[in-house]
Amino acid sequence: MSPIVTLLTDFGTSDAYVGIMKGVLIGACRAITVIDLTHAIPAQNVLAGALTLRSAVGVFPPGTIHLAVVDPGVGTARRAIAVATAHAIFVGPDNGLLAPAVKHLGVTAVHAIENASLFRHPVSMTFHGRDVFAPVAGALAAGAPLDAVGPRTGQFVDLAIPEPTITRDRVDGCVIHVDHFGNLVTNIDSASLAGSTRFRGVVTLKGHRLDGVQTTYGSVAPGQAVAVIGSWGCVEIAISGGHAANSLGAGVGDAVTVEVA
Amino acid sequence: MSPIVTLLTDFGTSDAYVGIMKGVLIGACRAITVIDLTHAIPAQNVLAGALTLRSAVGVFPPGTIHLAVVDPGVGTARRAIAVATAHAIFVGPDNGLLAPAVKHLGVTAVHAIENASLFRHPVSMTFHGRDVFAPVAGALAAGAPLDAVGPRTGQFVDLAIPEPTITRDRVDGCVIHVDHFGNLVTNIDSASLAGSTRFRGVVTLKGHRLDGVQTTYGSVAPGQAVAVIGSWGCVEIAISGGHAANSLGAGVGDAVTVEVA
Amino acid sequence: MSPIVTLLTDFGTSDAYVGIMKGVLIGACRAITVIDLTHAIPAQNVLAGALTLRSAVGVFPPGTIHLAVVDPGVGTARRAIAVATAHAIFVGPDNGLLAPAVKHLGVTAVHAIENASLFRHPVSMTFHGRDVFAPVAGALAAGAPLDAVGPRTGQFVDLAIPEPTITRDRVDGCVIHVDHFGNLVTNIDSASLAGSTRFRGVVTLKGHRLDGVQTTYGSVAPGQAVAVIGSWGCVEIAISGGHAANSLGAGVGDAVTVEVA
Repeated sequence: MSPIVTLLTDFGTSDAYVGIMKGVLIGACRAITVIDLTHAIPAQNVLAGALTLRSAVGVFPPGTIHLAVVDPGVGTARRAIAVATAHAIFVGPDNGLLAPAVKHLGVTAVHAIENASLFRHPVSMTFHGRDVFAPVAGALAAGAPLDAVGPRTGQFVDLAIPEPTITRDRVDGCVIHVDHFGNLVTNIDSASLAGSTRFRGVVTLKGHRLDGVQTTYGSVAPGQAVAVIGSWGCVEIAISGGHAANSLGAGVGDAVTVEVA
Repeated sequence: MSPIVTLLTDFGTSDAYVGIMKGVLIGACRAITVIDLTHAIPAQNVLAGALTLRSAVGVFPPGTIHLAVVDPGVGTARRAIAVATAHAIFVGPDNGLLAPAVKHLGVTAVHAIENASLFRHPVSMTFHGRDVFAPVAGALAAGAPLDAVGPRTGQFVDLAIPEPTITRDRVDGCVIHVDHFGNLVTNIDSASLAGSTRFRGVVTLKGHRLDGVQTTYGSVAPGQAVAVIGSWGCVEIAISGGHAANSLGAGVGDAVTVEVA
Repeated sequence: MSPIVTLLTDFGTSDAYVGIMKGVLIGACRAITVIDLTHAIPAQNVLAGALTLRSAVGVFPPGTIHLAVVDPGVGTARRAIAVATAHAIFVGPDNGLLAPAVKHLGVTAVHAIENASLFRHPVSMTFHGRDVFAPVAGALAAGAPLDAVGPRTGQFVDLAIPEPTITRDRVDGCVIHVDHFGNLVTNIDSASLAGSTRFRGVVTLKGHRLDGVQTTYGSVAPGQAVAVIGSWGCVEIAISGGHAANSLGAGVGDAVTVEVA
């Protein structure tokens, strides 16, 4: 079967940087299938990249290799790592980018990427996506064992991600992502609402009060704000047929509360 | 041969939504080849999606599966359908999105997508691209017969698309699309001009008068407006080396007339 | 092995134009692997396309076909060409777009694309990407010899690209590209600095003086400007963690000097 490699970067698509990485990948493994997650992570925003990566990896078949590069420390002493989970392998800088996704899937091994014989030479100090990460992911896709990339290590850099505060009658969270539609994704997952009356509670955002978590965007009239459990598995605030971030003047970091009415 | 699935959505590429759909597709059919048509359909603009889909499907090999999702009614009672034409299969919401393309190619069968055993569970109320449409398209790519998705049905939701008015000495149409170059694509197709002197007529748009339908953009001097038969097979108004929509202050819906001089 | 075709255009991704080209390519060669370099070359900017193409082709495996379309003269008398280098084939308009890349790799043969039996008919006057270039690249991917596209020719249109002036104690160049991160890529390559003290010289841009060519972006404090040898192999001016083009008010064409302090 064709090995699968996903790509997530902050490289944008106006340069050839992503295409160059794919050229290196296919040079290392001609049978490879590459799937773009996104290349529009805001420049050098490790947290945004980490959250988007975590939101996506659950659907891919066993054996998928996830290659992610949001790497403000390229060329400095930051490590590069390859992380195995039960069903996938992750490759990227050791700056927290991979942490939420691999913890979500369950880490089984962490290796420091140190085997320079796998790299593309000369290794630049500015584009490890091309010279380090793509060659290593390509080698893994071609069948190299994880041991080949470098020694096993016990640790990787974790990432502080905002967690909601859950009490008996309310959940205090915040917006962690604004998507293409302007929907405001929060860190309040459905589990934190389950088994309680909180699901029917009042959702509050920047003075706007929404009446409970509804089943879908169309549960309210067009132009009305609505809270739903969105595709991230979390409370998401949308405007039916509209753009919530613009209409409500809200964005990442804004507080969201769900409380019993 | 590798099954081909095309994707057209209004999801944008700043989130991982498209990548997630591809993960589901390749999970259902490892040999699949996925080709993006575009993901930049304006949010929830079914007509824009339908016209772009129709403009693209003609070039694909027999057996291609076209998966399209512009779905403001996701999670509501709107149906999902799979439509067979002589050479292709279409999968998407039953909201008119598929109608112009499948009518253009000739419908041979319509099936309601109801076989939940094909879906990804739990089925969300907000992301049927991931949970319904991609799994179904992937199953079809893997060889499932169209009957497997659900019962045959006689109908699908049609879409009112603006048609030109053709008389002996003039054609009255309108702009239906503005492309990346700023070219103004109209609904006046070349057939409506053929066999008459209308081809040499005056093309009028917002008070601008253009001298006949020319053969190519370079038929006029740089910076001049020109009407040509564009790649949609329709009259298209461009600025040679420029951006007609900006320069002429025109957009979708503006009237365009071709009349004998 | 699956033939590889790369694509570079100024078509953007908001229309289905790129997807249509891929449909034609896969119709001509079902085993094809298509890799996007970028479709965000500024409209009709042949120089920008040529420089980006040149920056990318070095990493692809032998036998790769590079299909590039930035084609303001589509439909006019400009020729179409296929150019062989030692390890790759290039297909595109004969307007200089291919010139820097093929000269960089070493030209072994140039053929005029004239064999209309390979084209998609009717051939439009506005979209040779679909009707001429993709069918020809697809035929080459499927194994057609270069002779099949048309007669060998001795020439192709060259492109004037800005070259730096190198003297004993200074190099005078300019910005040739602004990338997604706002980094200012110059035409001063590392070879022009090697073997001299110029590498430790002062880099000047619009009145800003930077202290030598550093090893990486992180060699300076966040928010500080830094000159490095970037991924194009040239001097590149960046703001560590920031956007140099915006912060320094600089862009393509601005003079950059490296001089001994």
